[in-house]
Amino acid sequence: MTVAVIGAGKCDQNIYELARSAGRALAQAGYRVICGGLGGVMEAACRGVREGGGMSIGILPGDDTQQANAYVDIPVATGMGIGRNIIIVRSADVVLAVAGSFGTLSEIAYALQLGKPVIGLQTWNISEKILKVSDVEQALSAIAGLDLTK
Amino acid sequence: MTVAVIGAGKCDQNIYELARSAGRALAQAGYRVICGGLGGVMEAACRGVREGGGMSIGILPGDDTQQANAYVDIPVATGMGIGRNIIIVRSADVVLAVAGSFGTLSEIAYALQLGKPVIGLQTWNISEKILKVSDVEQALSAIAGLDLTK
Amino acid sequence: MTVAVIGAGKCDQNIYELARSAGRALAQAGYRVICGGLGGVMEAACRGVREGGGMSIGILPGDDTQQANAYVDIPVATGMGIGRNIIIVRSADVVLAVAGSFGTLSEIAYALQLGKPVIGLQTWNISEKILKVSDVEQALSAIAGLDLTK
Amino acid sequence: MTVAVIGAGKCDQNIYELARSAGRALAQAGYRVICGGLGGVMEAACRGVREGGGMSIGILPGDDTQQANAYVDIPVATGMGIGRNIIIVRSADVVLAVAGSFGTLSEIAYALQLGKPVIGLQTWNISEKILKVSDVEQALSAIAGLDLTK
Repeated sequence: MTVAVIGAGKCDQNIYELARSAGRALAQAGYRVICGGLGGVMEAACRGVREGGGMSIGILPGDDTQQANAYVDIPVATGMGIGRNIIIVRSADVVLAVAGSFGTLSEIAYALQLGKPVIGLQTWNISEKILKVSDVEQALSAIAGLDLTK
Repeated sequence: MTVAVIGAGKCDQNIYELARSAGRALAQAGYRVICGGLGGVMEAACRGVREGGGMSIGILPGDDTQQANAYVDIPVATGMGIGRNIIIVRSADVVLAVAGSFGTLSEIAYALQLGKPVIGLQTWNISEKILKVSDVEQALSAIAGLDLTK
Repeated sequence: MTVAVIGAGKCDQNIYELARSAGRALAQAGYRVICGGLGGVMEAACRGVREGGGMSIGILPGDDTQQANAYVDIPVATGMGIGRNIIIVRSADVVLAVAGSFGTLSEIAYALQLGKPVIGLQTWNISEKILKVSDVEQALSAIAGLDLTK
Repeated sequence: MTVAVIGAGKCDQNIYELARSAGRALAQAGYRVICGGLGGVMEAACRGVREGGGMSIGILPGDDTQQANAYVDIPVATGMGIGRNIIIVRSADVVLAVAGSFGTLSEIAYALQLGKPVIGLQTWNISEKILKVSDVEQALSAIAGLDLTK
């Protein structure tokens, strides 16, 4: 199963460590992680994935795989700018939002439009369809409890 | 100046007439209208534009221009599904949201991320950056008052 | 009917005038013209369209409609770079290639893959499915003779 | 280094085995393989990669990762149809074309436009910039000999 970790390209240290521990826990639980491949929450998630022995995919806005942060295992260069957000969502089974600003909101909106589960950690509170959790442990439980065959 | 009118592909009669009168007023004021080219609010806006003597552009999700509603003047077939939302936003100077669901939310999020003005008519109340208006007249005033040179 | 005029962003004066006269003739014959919206053959085609009293659509690679050449009537900003080539082809009923380099070749390939008619003026000779013509008059005749109901 | 293996979604047994042995050799040489993720040459390449102990990435046209052939390790769902061809090319350092029809031609054209090396095995002979090779061994030598720092 593939989990998209979404969040801002710049974030404070608390959010960075939250995303990093989420990435680590997801990798340890055997999930694959996909994200936007840049800095902030994306870098933190990929870093955690690497620490957890997993694999991360970065769907980049730019036209060169060199744009990926240092922890992306599989960089994909779309050349589509923020238009690449839809590809992150389409390629994931579940979306885990960690804080985030308007870019993150566009991804949450896409996920909800496509009927994909969205787990929210300190993120946009715009729909009761978002499963709000308060820490990484709860996020992992929520993901484990999803019935994706529905 | 080009105004994106965004909203759901299915809507009730009240919202339809609201979007239609918005399209009409925008055309009469000399603005060009761009939208997603399908039904509901999109069709209503294009229909109003035609009634107002203007021109509408439909950025379609499908791979064939035949998908456009009957009132689109300039159909563009992207073949990108809802990934085409970013193109609507990028091509507009201002975004006018009329009600709308998650697809509309993705477009509002993109517009705010790109720093484009968003006027909201009975739509998502997710940021104070959205200029909320209560009728078409106020929407037109808000658009006329924008200083896009900023 | 919408005709895509495709060709390089830089070209010599002979090719420029050829594309310009093609644009003019297409507009005078009542066709709408779509292109990539930049310089060279694209600018020439749009300029001819304006001289012929028609309307041109520019599907731009960049993220801002300001990128369009001075003769584009309807600029669409995709932010997809040369990935926008597919949108030009999908939105056209017929493709008219005027000379051109690798970008033009990608568009010819897409058109042939989608089964769209391709008319070639001094362009890539890579398939007998391309209807080769030697001047604008012949190109217009070829377009007029297409049975698009097939 | 990432090598894009491009070719048709349907092919005869000879081409299938050629692509499969190319995938196997690339994996054994330590390259990562990216492709369009569907059948024919794409499936054969991914199958060879798996046999060679490597990892393959499939950039899918559809909106669901379930569309991937059975040998894709990392499926990416773009929802862009053949518009996804540019992403395959942008994400690769080198392109290896195995036979192929118009879709393959669009990818070769994009690669040449972006200045990426193209190795050709029984494929389109449309530019002297394509390094033509006659078997998988030669293809691997050509790739090994590339100076990508240029």
